[in-house]
Amino acid sequence: MSEHVIDTVLRVRVEHRAGQLARLANTIAEAGGLIGDVSTVQVGETATLRDVTIETIDEAQTIHVVRCIGEIDGVDVVESTDRVFEAHRGGKLHSTSRVHLDQLADMRSIYTPGVARVSQAIVKDPNRAWDLTSVGNSVGIFTNGSRVLGLGNIGPLASMPVMEGKAVIYDELAGISATPILIDTLDPFEFVETVMRVSPTFGGIHLEDIRIPDCYIIEDELRRRLCKPVMHDDQHGTATVTLAAVINACKITGRDLKRSRVGMIGLGAAGSAIAMLAVSYGVGEVLVSDINADAVSRVQRAGAIASDAATIMATADIVIAATGRPGLIAASSIRRGQVIFALTNPKPEILPSEARAAGAAFAGDGRSINNALAFPGLFRGALEARSCAITTEMLIAAAEVIASLAKPGDVVPSCLDRNVHQAVAATVAETARNAGLAGTAKL
Amino acid sequence: MSEHVIDTVLRVRVEHRAGQLARLANTIAEAGGLIGDVSTVQVGETATLRDVTIETIDEAQTIHVVRCIGEIDGVDVVESTDRVFEAHRGGKLHSTSRVHLDQLADMRSIYTPGVARVSQAIVKDPNRAWDLTSVGNSVGIFTNGSRVLGLGNIGPLASMPVMEGKAVIYDELAGISATPILIDTLDPFEFVETVMRVSPTFGGIHLEDIRIPDCYIIEDELRRRLCKPVMHDDQHGTATVTLAAVINACKITGRDLKRSRVGMIGLGAAGSAIAMLAVSYGVGEVLVSDINADAVSRVQRAGAIASDAATIMATADIVIAATGRPGLIAASSIRRGQVIFALTNPKPEILPSEARAAGAAFAGDGRSINNALAFPGLFRGALEARSCAITTEMLIAAAEVIASLAKPGDVVPSCLDRNVHQAVAATVAETARNAGLAGTAKL
Repeated sequence: MSEHVIDTVLRVRVEHRAGQLARLANTIAEAGGLIGDVSTVQVGETATLRDVTIETIDEAQTIHVVRCIGEIDGVDVVESTDRVFEAHRGGKLHSTSRVHLDQLADMRSIYTPGVARVSQAIVKDPNRAWDLTSVGNSVGIFTNGSRVLGLGNIGPLASMPVMEGKAVIYDELAGISATPILIDTLDPFEFVETVMRVSPTFGGIHLEDIRIPDCYIIEDELRRRLCKPVMHDDQHGTATVTLAAVINACKITGRDLKRSRVGMIGLGAAGSAIAMLAVSYGVGEVLVSDINADAVSRVQRAGAIASDAATIMATADIVIAATGRPGLIAASSIRRGQVIFALTNPKPEILPSEARAAGAAFAGDGRSINNALAFPGLFRGALEARSCAITTEMLIAAAEVIASLAKPGDVVPSCLDRNVHQAVAATVAETARNAGLAGTAKL
Repeated sequence: MSEHVIDTVLRVRVEHRAGQLARLANTIAEAGGLIGDVSTVQVGETATLRDVTIETIDEAQTIHVVRCIGEIDGVDVVESTDRVFEAHRGGKLHSTSRVHLDQLADMRSIYTPGVARVSQAIVKDPNRAWDLTSVGNSVGIFTNGSRVLGLGNIGPLASMPVMEGKAVIYDELAGISATPILIDTLDPFEFVETVMRVSPTFGGIHLEDIRIPDCYIIEDELRRRLCKPVMHDDQHGTATVTLAAVINACKITGRDLKRSRVGMIGLGAAGSAIAMLAVSYGVGEVLVSDINADAVSRVQRAGAIASDAATIMATADIVIAATGRPGLIAASSIRRGQVIFALTNPKPEILPSEARAAGAAFAGDGRSINNALAFPGLFRGALEARSCAITTEMLIAAAEVIASLAKPGDVVPSCLDRNVHQAVAATVAETARNAGLAGTAKL
């Protein structure tokens, strides 16, 4: 995959002349753009209208490409549409009725007077809300926007496109009704209090894009106080998919993960959770390193060994880096046969190609670790089993099933494969039942 | 409309004999049930399987009907399905994706890396959230379940079927994405604080089924603090539809509303709002009565005149009762030519037929005042105009347009007529623009 992340559809008017399209393609290439689809909109008397999708690195390059095209004799850019912005226009989510209102009888069933009996049935037995409301198939996606992607603390409103994206993934891949809830506070205790107060609305609580250490305080407290699944995806979703990828990287390189030394460089939310899940999985040894002493001791208490980046590079069989620092790992520090996952997005600590050239037996970057592989099935399975929690055993079971579904040579399967999410859900629900957690959730 | 509010589909096996269906129909009628649809499921060698929909007053009567049917020789009830419960099964709402995830390119547009640019655009200019998220077309329906229908304080979870019903109405009738938010507190200040904290999630704040006086405190405070439409539907939605019905009742009876004396008996949330909206509309005189002195002085401050039920019955041209006390109004107290709206559900203060027999020029009950006629268009119009509030002028404009769309002889139009909601939205948006409120909302 390239770094050409911006797709723009240019509507171009090209006068009928020999070699015009070749000239256009050349100009785009010389200006640094890539060409995607080309489609003909209209063939006129003297000119043809075409839509040309170009891929560029950033908006400045798009402007540059458009200017260069405009300089070709007989070619005009009529319109320019940013495909990403088009996809988000009007929002990506709608709270949709599952019933129709065509007749007065429908109104009387779904609203007054009929609805009163349904409410009364839930008063008598709150468990009937599982069947008689949408709550049992719903997840609230809670954020305060304090650590969104690589953008930092952008606040609740600006984080909405990301939260809607998560909700889209829930609906499309797992059939879960997910609702973003933006919380306007940076105080973790106010955050907890707010989630507690609206918690009857949702069957599961998905925490997203909350800065450390607030995310730990919030998740711990909500788990303690709620009898329903609570999960901070940046921690456990990412850790689950990483574990799956590491399991397969070991398979590919003929290594026994449970007898290996794993080194985790960078103990943010993701790194800490990866290290802790590796310990729980039963990896031989887990070495960790971070400049933040609190982060290190938190992971140490879970069974990891405090270390430093140099020692990890020099001694670990499998190195995972999630530092936020592109290019941190020098090719010269790679040992022959190492497995390297450099997870910082969009630019990793070391390019996979560079790591492989330096002798790594396997090298991957953040694009292998798509956490959309884990959270939809984790919550689907937990809700189906009506489990009061998503446990470490469920994360491990999910990681194993994700790993098992990758194509030979790949570390993870495609997140668009609906079967993967079904398999994750089934495994998670079964793990809940085996642990005696089925039916323990309270709405 | 009858009080037979329970629809049950009975699957009945009827042996082939002359007059069996007549016997079945007779039995149902004698047991007090009404017969709705009858459909043939299967014709067998010796018997026919039919689905018979019966309407009953309560569940005890349903059980009685089923038992009586079972006593007919050659007839068996095979299955019994409560239609209302069927309509609610699995919940009535789903948070649905407006985009499809079929290819990796979709994922890259709606989620990372594409979404980061969309979030950054909102950071730079928060107004872009109107176009680039779902917030601008969304309403949060907030309740603590402290006064739900006639059921009282049933708490948040049991009120969910009602809130989902409201959200269904928003989606089906006005295309608004509405999300119920259940708030687990009876403290009005905690309620306000919770709504404030999650308010970035929604373009409009719909308050529902909150007891008095908490609903006043909550609505006032949220209106003061938020730059977006806030409305307690039990107050203003009901008042808007009541005003529409009263306008038409005056038209039907040849009365000039602005020169009439309106008496409001019962100053709960609905009654108080009706009285205050009548004052704002410019009704000649508004007399009010309630045992709660605080309720009376609140409405007095808005321009109504404190009175008592006897005086109102004896002197008002138009009497509106919303007391929660069925049968409160004696037929003997009705004056010839009065307009009577007895709004208590499901049994009114006086039956319309009784009031008419006692000389009322017009009589209606709560079934005329379906507040689903007002709230969808009110919020749609306010959101379209990006108005910071739903004002009294907008309520009056909505009431007038609702009244104008009723068929001759009716006081209100059908709430299932989508044109009504479009007309309300258009009028509300225009009223906002004329008042200089367009574009004043802040997400």
